[in-house]
Amino acid sequence: MTDNARQGGEKPAEISKDGSFKRQINRFVMPFGNEPGELPVEAGRYRLFWCAACPWAHRSVIVRKVLGLEDAISLGTVSPMRPRLPHVDWEFSLDPDGVDPVLGIRYMSEIYLKTDPEYTGRPTVPAVVDVAKREVVNNDYFKLTNYFETVWAPFHKPDSPDLYPEHLRGEIDALNETIFHDINNGVYKCGFARSQEAYEQAYETLFERLDELEERLSRRRFLHGDFITDSDVRLYTTLVRFDAAYYAAFRTNRKLIREFEHLWGYVRDLYQTPGFGDTTDFDAIKRHYHQSITIATDRPEVAILPKGPDLSVWDLPHDRHALSGQEGKFLIRS
Amino acid sequence: MTDNARQGGEKPAEISKDGSFKRQINRFVMPFGNEPGELPVEAGRYRLFWCAACPWAHRSVIVRKVLGLEDAISLGTVSPMRPRLPHVDWEFSLDPDGVDPVLGIRYMSEIYLKTDPEYTGRPTVPAVVDVAKREVVNNDYFKLTNYFETVWAPFHKPDSPDLYPEHLRGEIDALNETIFHDINNGVYKCGFARSQEAYEQAYETLFERLDELEERLSRRRFLHGDFITDSDVRLYTTLVRFDAAYYAAFRTNRKLIREFEHLWGYVRDLYQTPGFGDTTDFDAIKRHYHQSITIATDRPEVAILPKGPDLSVWDLPHDRHALSGQEGKFLIRS
Repeated sequence: MTDNARQGGEKPAEISKDGSFKRQINRFVMPFGNEPGELPVEAGRYRLFWCAACPWAHRSVIVRKVLGLEDAISLGTVSPMRPRLPHVDWEFSLDPDGVDPVLGIRYMSEIYLKTDPEYTGRPTVPAVVDVAKREVVNNDYFKLTNYFETVWAPFHKPDSPDLYPEHLRGEIDALNETIFHDINNGVYKCGFARSQEAYEQAYETLFERLDELEERLSRRRFLHGDFITDSDVRLYTTLVRFDAAYYAAFRTNRKLIREFEHLWGYVRDLYQTPGFGDTTDFDAIKRHYHQSITIATDRPEVAILPKGPDLSVWDLPHDRHALSGQEGKFLIRS
Repeated sequence: MTDNARQGGEKPAEISKDGSFKRQINRFVMPFGNEPGELPVEAGRYRLFWCAACPWAHRSVIVRKVLGLEDAISLGTVSPMRPRLPHVDWEFSLDPDGVDPVLGIRYMSEIYLKTDPEYTGRPTVPAVVDVAKREVVNNDYFKLTNYFETVWAPFHKPDSPDLYPEHLRGEIDALNETIFHDINNGVYKCGFARSQEAYEQAYETLFERLDELEERLSRRRFLHGDFITDSDVRLYTTLVRFDAAYYAAFRTNRKLIREFEHLWGYVRDLYQTPGFGDTTDFDAIKRHYHQSITIATDRPEVAILPKGPDLSVWDLPHDRHALSGQEGKFLIRS
């Protein structure tokens, strides 16, 4: 068993020869929509699986809540603590009897293998499962929020916001690419690097990008102006985990997010918005990154949970309103 | 081999049944002085051994430099990286050929065992060795600076400061006890705890004490008023290591020292004082705590050195002068 497998972290297959981390590509990428060859948009048909620690899954849960899709798409939750198995997996150990109450499975791998017996990747979250068919139909964390924001509109709550306005999609998509490579996945490239060079390169890129966004957010309340968009959801999920997890566990330690003037006000502004802070589980985040996927996994005697940081600072007031010409935080669809 | 031994850290013998860390007591505690039964105060007779990463040794090197004892007591330096041996040791791997040029030894254990073949403790620094006798005569890190400050006065440089003024000794000794148990050793109690309860108790005490000192230092430039004393040296050696090492490696992560208004100005004031910053080796500190004594030791593939934190902040100006009624930082002996 390799070290990576022992860590319960990423697969060794995702470590390149130069020691850098290359995330696996998604297997189930059929889009949602109403055309042939697309996944039908139907309330009650799908179950979304997430882990509260996972930034990739968290983004879809934020958007689901902000748009009011809770009744249309049910939610299953895996534990932030990966199971001690020879393979990397996610476990339903938070549920009664340790099984998902809808699918009756104990591990995420079960539904991936039921869907595709040849599946050899990591079973990941978010994953959308067609409950009746008992199949994973989509685990495309990159595009999932965009489906929720567009083709799922018939099931949005009344007066739901527009997180992906048509006139901004080009700008949002471009920024999302940068946020993905250099920030969302950038922290993982730091944490999972297996060479000093690969780590330092990822670290430099990460902080260059944070410095740029710090400057950008000194002039705008949100990334694309006065209103929250899909890009803000994506940036939030990394920023909110940064001080409590990545800074120490992934060695992204030039400085803390709470030491950036504008990023810190910005992420608190989001945290204090319904759908963001109320779906943020710091305990799950801390346990996952400090006790489950990092090097302490196979050393239970040293798997002590850091008590800090002080979380009360998340509720401190901010003055981000001053940057916005508008009263609200969301663009309401006309 | 136990996990502690594998870590190259403290001996398992120093972990209590409740998982708390109990530091071993010093073996060689004969005082320096001019009375029978004391160690003669003689220039050129002794060699002081230190590791730049070690706060216990650093304090004696600061005092040696501030008082100008460099010519009277020579200095030997062990590597911040503990050797890969079945027992815990310090190594002269920074010296040409890997041996101390005066004693000709490769490991500190050699001189401890030469002194006492029955010695079973960890070989520690600081250690004062009588060069001609080739014996460790004192490893009493708690009192060593006080000897340098008092009975070694005949060898102090002209106009050397008084770090241990007679009229303040009671107050200094009392505060030193608190600093030792709750801060200097307090961070180790957090880092080496092997139960969640022991860790959390040490963490609470540590930050209670730091909060008290933060308040104290809002009113005084130094711990005992306008001048640097022995207590400041002791507090400095832990504070200067805190953000770069303890915060992540020892999980002392309620907040960083640079997030305390007064402690941060105070420790920079000291850092910018000759004898303090110029004996502070952040590279050694980072390598020791992140790569040598913590859990990555036996996992070389993940022993990546954190690039941060940004060290340029140590040279930022401070306004601590405003708290002092005096111009200098040291009380010069009359």
